[in-house]
Amino acid sequence: MKLQTNMSPKFQIIKRDKKSKARAGIISTPHGNIETPIFVPVGTQATVKAVSPRDLKEMGAQVVLANTYHLHLRPGEELIKKFGGLSKFMSWNGPTMTDSGGFQVFSLGVGKEGGGVKFLREGTKNYKKSEEGHPRLNKISEEGVTFQSHIDGSTHKLTPENSITIQEKLGADLIVAFDDLESPKYDFERTKESLDLTNRWELRSKSAHKRKDQLLYGVTHGGQFKDLRKLSAKFVDENFDAIGLGGAHLSKKNLYDVVDWTTDVVTEDKPRHLLGIGEVDDIFEGVERGIDTFDCVIPTRIARTGFFFISPPLGNMKNRFRTDIDKPQFVEDQKPLDTNCNCYTCQNFTRGYIHHLFRARELLSYSLLSIHNVYFLINLTKQIRQAILDNNFGKMKEEWLL
Amino acid sequence: MKLQTNMSPKFQIIKRDKKSKARAGIISTPHGNIETPIFVPVGTQATVKAVSPRDLKEMGAQVVLANTYHLHLRPGEELIKKFGGLSKFMSWNGPTMTDSGGFQVFSLGVGKEGGGVKFLREGTKNYKKSEEGHPRLNKISEEGVTFQSHIDGSTHKLTPENSITIQEKLGADLIVAFDDLESPKYDFERTKESLDLTNRWELRSKSAHKRKDQLLYGVTHGGQFKDLRKLSAKFVDENFDAIGLGGAHLSKKNLYDVVDWTTDVVTEDKPRHLLGIGEVDDIFEGVERGIDTFDCVIPTRIARTGFFFISPPLGNMKNRFRTDIDKPQFVEDQKPLDTNCNCYTCQNFTRGYIHHLFRARELLSYSLLSIHNVYFLINLTKQIRQAILDNNFGKMKEEWLL
Repeated sequence: MKLQTNMSPKFQIIKRDKKSKARAGIISTPHGNIETPIFVPVGTQATVKAVSPRDLKEMGAQVVLANTYHLHLRPGEELIKKFGGLSKFMSWNGPTMTDSGGFQVFSLGVGKEGGGVKFLREGTKNYKKSEEGHPRLNKISEEGVTFQSHIDGSTHKLTPENSITIQEKLGADLIVAFDDLESPKYDFERTKESLDLTNRWELRSKSAHKRKDQLLYGVTHGGQFKDLRKLSAKFVDENFDAIGLGGAHLSKKNLYDVVDWTTDVVTEDKPRHLLGIGEVDDIFEGVERGIDTFDCVIPTRIARTGFFFISPPLGNMKNRFRTDIDKPQFVEDQKPLDTNCNCYTCQNFTRGYIHHLFRARELLSYSLLSIHNVYFLINLTKQIRQAILDNNFGKMKEEWLL
Repeated sequence: MKLQTNMSPKFQIIKRDKKSKARAGIISTPHGNIETPIFVPVGTQATVKAVSPRDLKEMGAQVVLANTYHLHLRPGEELIKKFGGLSKFMSWNGPTMTDSGGFQVFSLGVGKEGGGVKFLREGTKNYKKSEEGHPRLNKISEEGVTFQSHIDGSTHKLTPENSITIQEKLGADLIVAFDDLESPKYDFERTKESLDLTNRWELRSKSAHKRKDQLLYGVTHGGQFKDLRKLSAKFVDENFDAIGLGGAHLSKKNLYDVVDWTTDVVTEDKPRHLLGIGEVDDIFEGVERGIDTFDCVIPTRIARTGFFFISPPLGNMKNRFRTDIDKPQFVEDQKPLDTNCNCYTCQNFTRGYIHHLFRARELLSYSLLSIHNVYFLINLTKQIRQAILDNNFGKMKEEWLL
C-alpha cells in the first residue's frame, strides 16, 4: 500500500438502513480505507496481545487502536516517531487510531462498581492509593491531569496540548481529543462541571492539532443526563469532523440511550466511534443507533482466560456468545472452536487440542484463542455491514439477539 | 500431502563429504521427506512453544520432536490416538519424532553439575526429593522406572514395553527405544552395569515394537569410556536400523569423542540422531562426525529469556552466536534481529520494536524471538546440507567457527 501523506481522512456513507440509523460507509485514511461498520482490535502497547500483524491482515482487520497513555510511558512517542510512526513501528502498515490517554489516566486497572468505573479521583469515596500496575491520579486542574506511571512511579502530566502533541508524534490516522471523565455517580451539577471542563479541554485539543492527515474525534459526555448529552453532542458536532462516545463506564441501558441521544443530534455524515465497547449485543445495538466503529480489549483479554466467542445457536444472549475452553467437555472434542468460523484457528485446530494447550499453559493457546476472538468480532461487523448493504440488518440482528 | 500409511521410513545418503564423515541424505517417512542434515525443533507438549504450525512450515521445518513423558501425562496417548496421532493432533501434518520418555524421567527439571545432569536416583549423592514442577524418580528395577508426575504427583511406570506402546499410540514416524541413563560421574563398572541394563531394555523395546510405519532408533551409551561406547554402538547397529546418541549430559569434548567413536562403528547408511543438542558449534562438529539430525529446546527456551541467534561476523564462538534483546543498545535499533536472516521476524520487525515488546512482556515478543531462533538453526542446517552438496562443508565450518 502506498502511503498518501498529503491526504486528510474522509468519511463517506454508501448505504443507509431503512428501518434504523444503521449505515455502511468508508473512512479513507493515508494508510488505507476502513469499511464500516467495523470492530477495531486494541493493540494497547503497539501490539494486539498474542496476535501478529500478519494474523491481523489475514483476519481482515482494517484499523488497530493503540493507547496513548501506555505508549507515552513506554517506549515514548519520540521513539515511535523515529521509527516512522505507530503503524510502521508495529509493522502493521495499515490505518491506526490512538485515544487521548485520558480514560487510562482516570480509570486504568480499577474494577467496575455499580456499572461504573471506580474512580481514583482523590477525595471521592472510592479513592485508593496506587497499587502496583495501576496509575495513580494525583491531581486534576484546569491545565490537565498529573499522574504517576504504573511502570516506575514517575510523575507525568497529560494536558489537551500534550495529548495532541503525543498523538501527532505517534502518527495514527484517527486521533481523539483530551477529555475529562465523569463518574456515573455524579449528580447533574457535578456532571455539568465535568462536561464544561471537557469542552474547554477539547477546544484546546483542537487548537493544538496541526497535522491535517489525522482525523480528530471530539468525544461527547454528559453522563446519563439527556439534556447534557444533547448539549455535548451539539458542541462536539460544531467543533469536530468525527464523533466519539465513551461507553465502558456506562450500564447497557444508559449506553444505548446515550448513543441514541447523540446520534439524533450530530451531523449524519461524520464518522462515529464508540470507545471501549465490544460485546456482541452492544455492537448490534450500537450499529442500529448509527455507530460506525467500535474498539475493545474484550476479545484478547477473555482469550487469555480461556474464553472464546461462539455464534448462534450455541452462542446466545444468555452465555454472552462465549464459552470456556477449560471445560472438561472439550477434552475429546474434535470440532473447531466455532463451527461457523473461517479464522486460522478454526480452520486448523480442534477444541480438544486447544483445551490441551490451555491446560498446559502453552503460549500458543493464547494466540489461537485471541486470533479466533478478534476475527469473530471483525467478521461479525463485516457481516453486519453486508446485511446493511443487503437491506437485511434488522433480520440479522433478530437472528443473533433472540 | 498424502499420508502413506503402508510405507516404512527409509534413509538414503545422496552425498558424502570428501574430507569428513559429513553426509547429506533423505529420510522418507509416511508423513513426508526429511532432508538431512536438519535441526529438529522440539514441541514438548505437542507444540513448539510460542510457534504455530504455519510458522514451522514457513520456516522450512521438516520434522518436530515431542516428548513421550509429557504427552503420556497430559493429554495421554489414548487421546492423541483418537485425534489421529501426534502430527494431526497438533495440526502439523508433517513428520514427527518422539523420544522414549527415559531422559525426562531421569533428568527433567534438574540442573547441570560438572557438565552432567544431576541425578535424582535415590541413594546417589545428589538425590533430591521432588520439587514442584519436577518429576520424582522413585525406583529403577529390571522391569523399568517408577516415578511421580510433575503435574499431580500421581505414580507412573515407564518400561521398555509401555514406552513403545505409548509411542505407537502417539504415532510419530521416528521413535526411540527405552534406555537407562548413566551419570558422567559413574566409574567404568557402574557405567557397564547401566549399559547392560540399557541393552536389555532396548531389546525389549525392539520386541515390543509392532508398527512398521515407524522407524525405531536404538540409543548408544557407555559414558565416556571408549570401549563401552564401541560395544554399545555395535550392539545398537546389530539390532536397529537407526542410531541415536544422547548428548545433553556430556561435556563438549566428551560429546565429540563419543560421536566419533560411535559413527566409526555403525553401518554407514543408517540415520543418526543426536538427542538434545542444538548449539551452533555442536551442530557443525556433529555433522562433521556423521550426525544427520539434531533436536534441542535451546532456540525456544532462550527466546523466552530474550536471547536470539546472530550469524557471523556479529555472532561468534565467544558470544555463542547469540545476544540479548533486552540490552539498552537495541532501544533505537531499526535493523532486524539478524541482518542475514530471512525469517518472518527479520523480514518484518526491528530490534527496537522487539526490545519494546520484550520490555513490556508482550507475548508477541516470545513468538517473534522463537520464530527467529528456530528458523536460524533450521536454516543453518539447510546451509550445511547445501555446503555438503557443493563440496564446501569444511570451508563453511571454518567461516562460522573462527
